Amino acid sequence: MKKHILVIPGDGIGPEVTTWGKAVLEKIGHDFGHEFTFDEALMGHAGIEATGNPLPDETLAKAKASDAILFGAIGHIKYDNDPSAKVRPEQGLLKIRKELGLYANLRPIMLFDELLDASSLKPEILKGTDILFFRELTGDVYFGEKKRSEDRNTASDLMIYSRYEVERIAIKAYEAAMVRGKRLCSVDKANVLEASRLWREVVQEIAKNYPEVETEHMFIDNAAMQLVKNPKKFDVVLTANLFGDILTDEASQIAGSMGMLASASIGDGTGFFEPIHGSAHDIAGMDKANPLASILSVALMLEISFGLKDEAKLITSAIDKTLKEGYRTGDIADANTDKAKILGTKAMGQKVLEYLAPPNPPR
Amino acid sequence: MKKHILVIPGDGIGPEVTTWGKAVLEKIGHDFGHEFTFDEALMGHAGIEATGNPLPDETLAKAKASDAILFGAIGHIKYDNDPSAKVRPEQGLLKIRKELGLYANLRPIMLFDELLDASSLKPEILKGTDILFFRELTGDVYFGEKKRSEDRNTASDLMIYSRYEVERIAIKAYEAAMVRGKRLCSVDKANVLEASRLWREVVQEIAKNYPEVETEHMFIDNAAMQLVKNPKKFDVVLTANLFGDILTDEASQIAGSMGMLASASIGDGTGFFEPIHGSAHDIAGMDKANPLASILSVALMLEISFGLKDEAKLITSAIDKTLKEGYRTGDIADANTDKAKILGTKAMGQKVLEYLAPPNPPR
Ligand SMILES: CC(C)[C@H](C(=O)O)[C@@H](O)C(=O)O
Ligand SMILES: CC(C)[C@H](C(=O)O)[C@@H](O)C(=O)O
Repeated sequence: MKKHILVIPGDGIGPEVTTWGKAVLEKIGHDFGHEFTFDEALMGHAGIEATGNPLPDETLAKAKASDAILFGAIGHIKYDNDPSAKVRPEQGLLKIRKELGLYANLRPIMLFDELLDASSLKPEILKGTDILFFRELTGDVYFGEKKRSEDRNTASDLMIYSRYEVERIAIKAYEAAMVRGKRLCSVDKANVLEASRLWREVVQEIAKNYPEVETEHMFIDNAAMQLVKNPKKFDVVLTANLFGDILTDEASQIAGSMGMLASASIGDGTGFFEPIHGSAHDIAGMDKANPLASILSVALMLEISFGLKDEAKLITSAIDKTLKEGYRTGDIADANTDKAKILGTKAMGQKVLEYLAPPNPPR
Repeated sequence: MKKHILVIPGDGIGPEVTTWGKAVLEKIGHDFGHEFTFDEALMGHAGIEATGNPLPDETLAKAKASDAILFGAIGHIKYDNDPSAKVRPEQGLLKIRKELGLYANLRPIMLFDELLDASSLKPEILKGTDILFFRELTGDVYFGEKKRSEDRNTASDLMIYSRYEVERIAIKAYEAAMVRGKRLCSVDKANVLEASRLWREVVQEIAKNYPEVETEHMFIDNAAMQLVKNPKKFDVVLTANLFGDILTDEASQIAGSMGMLASASIGDGTGFFEPIHGSAHDIAGMDKANPLASILSVALMLEISFGLKDEAKLITSAIDKTLKEGYRTGDIADANTDKAKILGTKAMGQKVLEYLAPPNPPR
């Protein structure tokens, strides 16, 4: 198989972790005889520094020309505390989502048995949790019109959805539910929001085409609660952009560490793969970041964009093995971790590569 | 002290639980020599059934004429699954918040030691958690203009804030932080939303008047995560209406049970006191609901609206004692609970009344 992959390291710990995602792609390509070619481009704070633009034209052009994108992280503390900044790193991420039509963000919450204890939840509450989030990614209050009054004393954002936007992601979520546990929970705030009432109407309609799937509608406040109370009860969770942003981060913590979770943004064209974690400037460049989410992003890319299930499985097995051998980065270490097995970014990436045994017999 | 209290039982389990809140008020009034008088009114589904209006005019008039309001719960499953319903129970609650200018919703997340095990979080993560939420209650996407296109295919809600709305609640939150742990975390999504950027600007300004308070700004997705990861790190949390709705429900689950948490909505006039839990129609009328949140709402009323700290303290002590003696309603019972001590709503309310010892010497 011949594929061209664009690597966008982004900000903070992004470059450190994507290095290892890319290394894993190279090894898989070599071992399985795939021809993976690579290019690199800037986005976010890195884009602003180099060109003044959080999504440089060149990056967008390269993105459109690639078969898949491996992304690191975005954001810089400097903008966070300056609410009046006009140009912001995050605009790059939002724009590329819109430009590539990446309307569905898939976030699998999977638990590695070895890490059950890393969560703040009791292991008996957690064990068996396996959730696949479908977060809408190109609509909602993220993209609706933003306004500031002339005296700067009033500010607004429009939360807006159209039928087709809900339909297309609902269909993807139901299709996924059909090959999983056949349960789908759609999260909204239909008791208050008109956009949510449209959301619920459309999901109710689509649900009719999937009579085998058990559909539940839940208010966002209740969902945020149920996720802590009984995460096992969820299979596929379908929700809007803003609610999905909140719920998936909450769920990632339930799973023990953000450092272990990857996401796939898909739509009509090129897929976009990234860790759930942010740019973590406080540890950037210190060889402390956990590269496993970036490596798991690569597994998602292989499976979803290229249909390479065996290769994807090999990656998760290698990570499993690394964890079983007791290796941890700082964020997933606990009192029981052998201190000598707490690794930095590089050593952890190296370990996974080691355990990525070539297929037998080699192809 | 002479006070007139309006009881609005509302929907579902509302009537069952407010019965016990009211009974506690009566006993406190009697034992401490306060003259508490009562009236009752309809709201929500109960209001719609009787008058077609979720907030009947009579209820609003009585509310304005009272010194404090004890509210039960709102909502009915019938409307939840009918996104096209024009008249909805929740409109009653939203309207009374707006009409009474109840712009600040205070939700203390307090832990009863006896219930540490009822949470899905590990006790060592939870122990010591003591958070006071300030949720803005009369602005945001809740009250911004709602629109549906003529073809009904597009729906929107306006997320909007004005400077004075942020200022007045920020001041209340900082004042509270000054007499608590002197730490305040303001939660927003300023990396994406213009309304959040205004929010952050204003909080940064107000913060200057409270140099002793350590201020932190956190994105909502991160806050939803940190609350699970390390709830102890929070003292006062200040946030907008929608984010507050989500975070406080999440936090309530962290605390073990919604059935134990009360809230106070305050502003410029009459205060409004209610449990955090909803109408729970599945158990309505079955003598299963936990009345403790309604009783704790009364403690908040006595302290915040009437300045009766001793009386409020007596109530929390009585609840403490009830729990120490091993009594539980179903929602807070666990494997270690003595089955004979699992009580229904009435028996639990009765127990608290029993333990509400009159002051010594009696006044
Ligand atoms: C960085 C930010 C704009 C982004 C979002 O809110 O979508 C991030 O939190 C995410 O979840 O990918
Ligand atoms: C019933 C609903 C309108 C309400 C809200 O969202 O404010 C409730 O969830 C609450 O938190 O009081």
